[in-house]
Amino acid sequence: MTDYPINLPEVVAEVRAVFDRYEAALLANDVPVLEELFWNRAETTRYGVGENLYGWQDISLFRRARRTGAFQRDLMKTIITTYGRDFATANTEYQRADHDRSGRETKTLLRTSDGWRVVSAHVSLLGETV
Amino acid sequence: MTDYPINLPEVVAEVRAVFDRYEAALLANDVPVLEELFWNRAETTRYGVGENLYGWQDISLFRRARRTGAFQRDLMKTIITTYGRDFATANTEYQRADHDRSGRETKTLLRTSDGWRVVSAHVSLLGETV
Repeated sequence: MTDYPINLPEVVAEVRAVFDRYEAALLANDVPVLEELFWNRAETTRYGVGENLYGWQDISLFRRARRTGAFQRDLMKTIITTYGRDFATANTEYQRADHDRSGRETKTLLRTSDGWRVVSAHVSLLGETV
Repeated sequence: MTDYPINLPEVVAEVRAVFDRYEAALLANDVPVLEELFWNRAETTRYGVGENLYGWQDISLFRRARRTGAFQRDLMKTIITTYGRDFATANTEYQRADHDRSGRETKTLLRTSDGWRVVSAHVSLLGETV
């Protein structure tokens, strides 16, 4: 087989636009956009800092029950990598002003007939080495 | 576009074999196999419980410097999802006998000309909700 071309500029631009849209929605607590950008399937997973969520429905319920409201965070070392035209990963470190510890967030994205969707997400705080 | 077929049984079987091989190597601290299964590119990332690693070289150096040795953990709720024939995610919860808190691990895998490789990994302990 031929390896997938990595980081085709037009594909990276597409994924970055989705990434940026998600981040803006997260900070604004814009739940409908967050729901839209997660793949609406039972297979979708999201490990948050304090919860393990299985399937779009659980992720939606979590978002709708949340009382966080808008908040601020700075992203550091964001790395978007695309594999061919339809798959991507987005990794970033982040720092919230109201937390001491920095966090890390991984998203895996798939191009679907509805557009790019997050099929798996993992958010955590950087901890002590074990 | 047509959506990618999800979880073609023969593709899931391939990815599960790689997942199982990785897990056995992790528990045995078989560094060469762990190195082999991470994609040998600067783009590869691994967020561990206590470290953020960028590129295959950093991941390799971390593995080789580690003094953990062999250990045991139980996996729970492992979910392998494949998208078409060449892309996959593997999510699992885990519990180490020597830790109170459970962990979560996400791998994103890509089929390359060398076989399936982990292009992004994220390991963390389940924390308190923020």
